[in-house]
Amino acid sequence: MATIRLWTDGEMEADPRLKAVFDDIRATRRSDFVNNFWRALANDPATLERTWANLKQVMVRRGSLDPLTKELVYIAVSTINSCPYCVHSHTAAARSNGLTDEQYAEFVSVVAMAAQTNALANSMQVPVDPEFLIGS
Amino acid sequence: MATIRLWTDGEMEADPRLKAVFDDIRATRRSDFVNNFWRALANDPATLERTWANLKQVMVRRGSLDPLTKELVYIAVSTINSCPYCVHSHTAAARSNGLTDEQYAEFVSVVAMAAQTNALANSMQVPVDPEFLIGS
Amino acid sequence: MATIRLWTDGEMEADPRLKAVFDDIRATRRSDFVNNFWRALANDPATLERTWANLKQVMVRRGSLDPLTKELVYIAVSTINSCPYCVHSHTAAARSNGLTDEQYAEFVSVVAMAAQTNALANSMQVPVDPEFLIGS
Amino acid sequence: MATIRLWTDGEMEADPRLKAVFDDIRATRRSDFVNNFWRALANDPATLERTWANLKQVMVRRGSLDPLTKELVYIAVSTINSCPYCVHSHTAAARSNGLTDEQYAEFVSVVAMAAQTNALANSMQVPVDPEFLIGS
Amino acid sequence: MATIRLWTDGEMEADPRLKAVFDDIRATRRSDFVNNFWRALANDPATLERTWANLKQVMVRRGSLDPLTKELVYIAVSTINSCPYCVHSHTAAARSNGLTDEQYAEFVSVVAMAAQTNALANSMQVPVDPEFLIGS
Amino acid sequence: MATIRLWTDGEMEADPRLKAVFDDIRATRRSDFVNNFWRALANDPATLERTWANLKQVMVRRGSLDPLTKELVYIAVSTINSCPYCVHSHTAAARSNGLTDEQYAEFVSVVAMAAQTNALANSMQVPVDPEFLIGS
Repeated sequence: MATIRLWTDGEMEADPRLKAVFDDIRATRRSDFVNNFWRALANDPATLERTWANLKQVMVRRGSLDPLTKELVYIAVSTINSCPYCVHSHTAAARSNGLTDEQYAEFVSVVAMAAQTNALANSMQVPVDPEFLIGS
Repeated sequence: MATIRLWTDGEMEADPRLKAVFDDIRATRRSDFVNNFWRALANDPATLERTWANLKQVMVRRGSLDPLTKELVYIAVSTINSCPYCVHSHTAAARSNGLTDEQYAEFVSVVAMAAQTNALANSMQVPVDPEFLIGS
Repeated sequence: MATIRLWTDGEMEADPRLKAVFDDIRATRRSDFVNNFWRALANDPATLERTWANLKQVMVRRGSLDPLTKELVYIAVSTINSCPYCVHSHTAAARSNGLTDEQYAEFVSVVAMAAQTNALANSMQVPVDPEFLIGS
Repeated sequence: MATIRLWTDGEMEADPRLKAVFDDIRATRRSDFVNNFWRALANDPATLERTWANLKQVMVRRGSLDPLTKELVYIAVSTINSCPYCVHSHTAAARSNGLTDEQYAEFVSVVAMAAQTNALANSMQVPVDPEFLIGS
Repeated sequence: MATIRLWTDGEMEADPRLKAVFDDIRATRRSDFVNNFWRALANDPATLERTWANLKQVMVRRGSLDPLTKELVYIAVSTINSCPYCVHSHTAAARSNGLTDEQYAEFVSVVAMAAQTNALANSMQVPVDPEFLIGS
Repeated sequence: MATIRLWTDGEMEADPRLKAVFDDIRATRRSDFVNNFWRALANDPATLERTWANLKQVMVRRGSLDPLTKELVYIAVSTINSCPYCVHSHTAAARSNGLTDEQYAEFVSVVAMAAQTNALANSMQVPVDPEFLIGS
């Protein structure tokens, strides 16, 4: 289904640069499972390294938002960008972060509510109220 | 800038059906300010009533997600749908719900991170891992 | 393939709140077939009820646009939002509403024509002519 | 606001190839007004000619769909593609084709309804029912 | 999987109007393989002819951009529009035009980089610098 | 127009961490002009540093694609994502990289051509030919 080859565990073990990233993914997530996204990125070590470094900084590092909120924002973006892979993988990640069935149902409602009002505002080209503006 | 007329306070006061919705918006939000979105919807009372009723049920009613998380999901959807009106109005709403500068900065990073990996997954058409699938 | 479970007929029969919506879907459409979309929404009764109520008000109720036109607008939105499920289900619905092969071919051409000029206008950031503006 | 220059009437009169297209636009639409979109395309005569020829074949030629239905499909696509220029210009065109306030209100509701269910189907990745599939 | 029927070689041979386009596709590409996109368009001869004529003028005709650059732009658009068919078919076309693994990896990085900064600019609604504006 | 404050030159000079990035942007681009995008990102030093580091690695570093091709891919993504800021800033960047009027016109045509066939393939849900698939 992909446009490029997905790397197997054996192939990654054989390349020190790739192995370093995969070892860190497994250690950070405390799981042996490495999903296809990283196996596709393995075709380009520089992009693999940069993407994993970015993801760790943004999603793994403790910040001011709790991990579950960040995963919900991630799924929302992925849904509207129509990325089936990302919706599936991050919904699974959100469940691992404790997402309950009730929270998921409410989340889905919010995404749909926003999409609905986006369409209303964009179809009527509603001008932004001056009260909402900041900066120049 | 809009494709339709925005209703003034005076016009809405004169129509009992519209007035009922606007009164409820003001009472629910504890603010006299009614933003342009609702003034545009006023052109169609049925859509105004239905949209406000939906929004109250999804966004105002207490559920299993906290109000700030719901606003962040809302802005994420609006950003990817390229709805300037919705981004502006819901970022203002999130700040009213207590969004700090630090949280906003982290939120923006998550949105950008998701958009980046969405593009990676969709450009390479990475197949969904069987581990992520639920249902038939 | 889904991120959640799809409810079977047996499970829905056992829950009065879900059964009421499914009975109404079947009665309104005069068909025993209930498609997967509603079986997914069944995981959250409130969203199931609200979504069906909205759909009945917007799509089923007789208004000023004929049912086929509304279905074509629906497919157009679903195509540009890249929702394979919605494109499939509403193209089937449009055929049930009498869409001919000739009309479908013309519809597809209009969607593609619009997408083409959207890309042209957005790539060159063509400013809106003052003649097109209404409202403030 | 544009990324390129918009051609004035005087400049177009001076170039026979551009003049031919602009004369045909004016004759076909029975109006002297030529909107900015075509003034931007004038930077590339081949694209101007091809786009206008396509638009005439798809939108002006009498087919199996009535002109107003085609304009509504066009606005729906433009709304979801977030093309402010196209939303404004084709909403004006739809009004010229007889769009009433009541029809416009209903149209906007359909666009928003579709966007809402698109988000629901894509967030839950609802699998397409086999009943909807045609072809291989 | 499609919403319409895909035409077989035998059916196209039997219709002179379709046969003419398919013969030209094969001759232009110097290959007997005709992909599903054209077999779907065959349901509407006018759209088939117009689309192929446009594609030849834009993508096949020698211009000021090299063929590989044009294919990369095409895949970029198709990725962001979430068109799996187009991503697959044009990535294959780009490889036929000499795309190397190294170039593909760099291309994918650029697409992801742009998607990331698009999300940043749109989430913060950064105003366009006056220095970037051309035209009125 | 923004949802956050844009940092002035004076403010950035006063913060060593921000100053370091802005100095590097100016040195890398050999220009004193720093556009609003970076002034918005300055609200979050970590995101400013990470985004600039990524951009340098992907867009500035010499790779296997020439700089102009990369800018065109960037604009294509920005156009389809409906990011007015990004379209403006990267079209300006492409011109600085030598983009001619003729190349720009051809580029715009390719973007529009792709958007058109994306809509055709997605509206008819054309199945991917097995010939295009790589990987599992």
